[in-house]
Amino acid sequence: MADKEKKLVEAITARDEDFAQWYTDVVIKAGLVSYSNIKGFIILKPAGYALWENIQKHMDARFKATGVENVYLPLLIPESLLQKEKDHVEGFAPEVAWVTMGGGEELTERYCVRPTSETLFCDFYKNEIHSYKDLPMVYNQWCSVVRWEKETRPFLRSREFLWQEGHTMHATREDAEARTQQMLDVYASFMEEDLAIPVIKGRKTDKEKFAGAEATYTVEAMMHDGRALQSGTSHHFGDGFARAFDITFTGQDNKPHYPFQTSWGVSTRMIGAMIMVHGDDSGLVIPPRIAPVQAVVIPIQQKKEGVLQAADRLCIELKNAGILARLDDSDKSPGFKFAEHEMRGVPLRLEIGPRDLEAGKCLFARRDTGEKIECAIAEAPARAKELLEEIQKNLLALARRNLVEHTYAAADWETFCGIFNGKGGFVKSMWCGDVACEEKIKEELSVTSRCMPFEQEHIADTCVCCGRPARKMVVWGRSY
Amino acid sequence: MADKEKKLVEAITARDEDFAQWYTDVVIKAGLVSYSNIKGFIILKPAGYALWENIQKHMDARFKATGVENVYLPLLIPESLLQKEKDHVEGFAPEVAWVTMGGGEELTERYCVRPTSETLFCDFYKNEIHSYKDLPMVYNQWCSVVRWEKETRPFLRSREFLWQEGHTMHATREDAEARTQQMLDVYASFMEEDLAIPVIKGRKTDKEKFAGAEATYTVEAMMHDGRALQSGTSHHFGDGFARAFDITFTGQDNKPHYPFQTSWGVSTRMIGAMIMVHGDDSGLVIPPRIAPVQAVVIPIQQKKEGVLQAADRLCIELKNAGILARLDDSDKSPGFKFAEHEMRGVPLRLEIGPRDLEAGKCLFARRDTGEKIECAIAEAPARAKELLEEIQKNLLALARRNLVEHTYAAADWETFCGIFNGKGGFVKSMWCGDVACEEKIKEELSVTSRCMPFEQEHIADTCVCCGRPARKMVVWGRSY
Repeated sequence: MADKEKKLVEAITARDEDFAQWYTDVVIKAGLVSYSNIKGFIILKPAGYALWENIQKHMDARFKATGVENVYLPLLIPESLLQKEKDHVEGFAPEVAWVTMGGGEELTERYCVRPTSETLFCDFYKNEIHSYKDLPMVYNQWCSVVRWEKETRPFLRSREFLWQEGHTMHATREDAEARTQQMLDVYASFMEEDLAIPVIKGRKTDKEKFAGAEATYTVEAMMHDGRALQSGTSHHFGDGFARAFDITFTGQDNKPHYPFQTSWGVSTRMIGAMIMVHGDDSGLVIPPRIAPVQAVVIPIQQKKEGVLQAADRLCIELKNAGILARLDDSDKSPGFKFAEHEMRGVPLRLEIGPRDLEAGKCLFARRDTGEKIECAIAEAPARAKELLEEIQKNLLALARRNLVEHTYAAADWETFCGIFNGKGGFVKSMWCGDVACEEKIKEELSVTSRCMPFEQEHIADTCVCCGRPARKMVVWGRSY
Repeated sequence: MADKEKKLVEAITARDEDFAQWYTDVVIKAGLVSYSNIKGFIILKPAGYALWENIQKHMDARFKATGVENVYLPLLIPESLLQKEKDHVEGFAPEVAWVTMGGGEELTERYCVRPTSETLFCDFYKNEIHSYKDLPMVYNQWCSVVRWEKETRPFLRSREFLWQEGHTMHATREDAEARTQQMLDVYASFMEEDLAIPVIKGRKTDKEKFAGAEATYTVEAMMHDGRALQSGTSHHFGDGFARAFDITFTGQDNKPHYPFQTSWGVSTRMIGAMIMVHGDDSGLVIPPRIAPVQAVVIPIQQKKEGVLQAADRLCIELKNAGILARLDDSDKSPGFKFAEHEMRGVPLRLEIGPRDLEAGKCLFARRDTGEKIECAIAEAPARAKELLEEIQKNLLALARRNLVEHTYAAADWETFCGIFNGKGGFVKSMWCGDVACEEKIKEELSVTSRCMPFEQEHIADTCVCCGRPARKMVVWGRSY
């Protein structure tokens, strides 16, 4: 390799040496983001935004298949509206940004930039819902939100981020509960099938639930370093907000009732999850289903007769087969191009040079395994499709192995501490249900309850922390 | 018609009686928007947002075909950044909203909610552009912006609106000029081919150009009432911002140069244009290419045996033919459904009842002409496709006729005033180039220069206002 090529690769910190630094290196070197001059506000560059576009496209189709309709509500929330639900305002007021001037004048009431839109949706639903015939209302919006976080990191925690927030209203508690769980399932399927990330589905403890919710459900994913990333949440509010906002509908019994509410959201955090689950020492690894470029065609000795034309033809044939292919005919060296497209996470590389051309062959290189596969030129499109499917499956299998291998059961406090004082991971342990135990665990080990999984197991009879009778199995972990 | 059906239709003001009130009635009755509690901030309901989604989809594909890449830049702009370009800050500072507090603390510098993002893009490009090899950079973002307008109206002027803003950097003035015009052509094609709205392409006078631009190009459309709606603009900044932000690149000559910049945008205003160009006394009329529902199937006497099944099968066959079809099997009366889907602008209605079924027939009704067309059931999908194309063409033809019929040439001041003191429209007249004439015309007639059309005509030798030698033909009109 030439010096310049080496440099590109050497510039990344090794993943297992300093995971945090590796992460930062990858998001920058892969061209996903750029820092702006405003702390905590990042710029999504074309490669980063294209990932979000693909996530949106897949997710939105899944939403619409369940009857979700998209809407758009205002960016700003009057302070009086935010304050209507007590728990909610306590949870969010400390971290909002306030608009106090508009059009050169001091405003009579300050407006916050939405940190989430439950209150706006309630105010909207109040005017829209009259009869049980109007229900359910199943709306969603794609937008950005602002939360004035102290510590920020690209995709994982920033002061502004892109997300979707679904807000629904139902005639009965059962309908609302079913929608809450349905959307959690949509998230879990998307994570596994499109992002190739296995998740644990469960319910948050009261300590960890959303401000104002009766119940919060979550999909928790394990990053390569064994830490947890909360990747999507779905909340059941009961009729708490409806009561606070005085939203009622006339039921079939001709009497007024409060409707039951849900909300659910995922954000650009999922891009962070994808990086931290699949990335390696050569950079990003993008699952084929959400890759903006699925295959890059690289001509070798491209100035030799016929090479560039053959590469171009190959690229067109891949495209005709429905593959998102790109030809790299820039004047960089092949080695540099290899390193660059590996860094950017392109799932499949296709090389073709003068000798290949003579033999009627070309060479695939898989981003996930590094494996090289020779292939007849005529068979390349079909082979590429197979390989992309294999890569998608393999990434999920690798991520699942990491999850399984770093998930432990701990029946007692000593084992529990031993794991978290060692290399960490997820720990399944029993819990008495007392928030005091959660607080002790957080304080002593910086570990939080990730969720009470829907699939409960019996690890022991007693709480791993206090020894009192256990009520639930909890998955514990250190989180991003 | 039953009382309830009548009510739905009667609730709209007649279009030619009070156009402004008709417009407000339509946006509400067609379910496009709802007012929020914050002045000037509207809620896009499912029917309204679906139009924006379709506009985005078509427009984004057109952008990407020209090499545009999407990005996302921060919502907030530090005051110091906004102030870097003198003309720009003068144009926008009076109408921005200021964030002065975040995370419970007073900020050391206030941030405005972006009214447009030239300054942010410049700050970004400063770090990204080093060599001529980095150019051009052709980025776009889909987002919302805030401008603290005094008078607001759904889609036409609101304090927050959704739009796209493209921002590009080029090595030469010629490249920047070519991109500015290319994007104006994209807007014009989209307006004509997808929205069925003919436009006049031209250049804005200095008085009407964008704050900080060297040249602003525009596509101007005529609404049904003869008023103008500026529907999309494309700006050439020269190297003014680059100098203000000290952005340079190393040219092929190995010397530093300032790059040349463009920006271009369209917004949800286009939905307002669509309403005001195509709508009628029965409500919205949506051009088939951007209609969320292209054909609605309505069963007549749906409780009679076989009717509902036949309607359902028809709907499925339309869908299989690639038509966005919907079955309305609600328990409302057929007459009510007719009025409701007309109000919502569905281009094509398909009725099927027991007698049709016996005869193997069904009945189309066109939203644009009201015409009813009998059709064999087996031929319905093919006929529907033809009809949708005919409707698309007819809407454009009608809009073009309106534009032509209400565009006049005025060689002298008396004729000019006569037209605008009458029923109005567009007037082509010669102009000396002096802003004083523009100001006089605005003051006396509330008429502004819409643009200096690319297709110039010779109406007279002298300025319509002052009589001095003419330099340009201008299209004048009253605008929204």
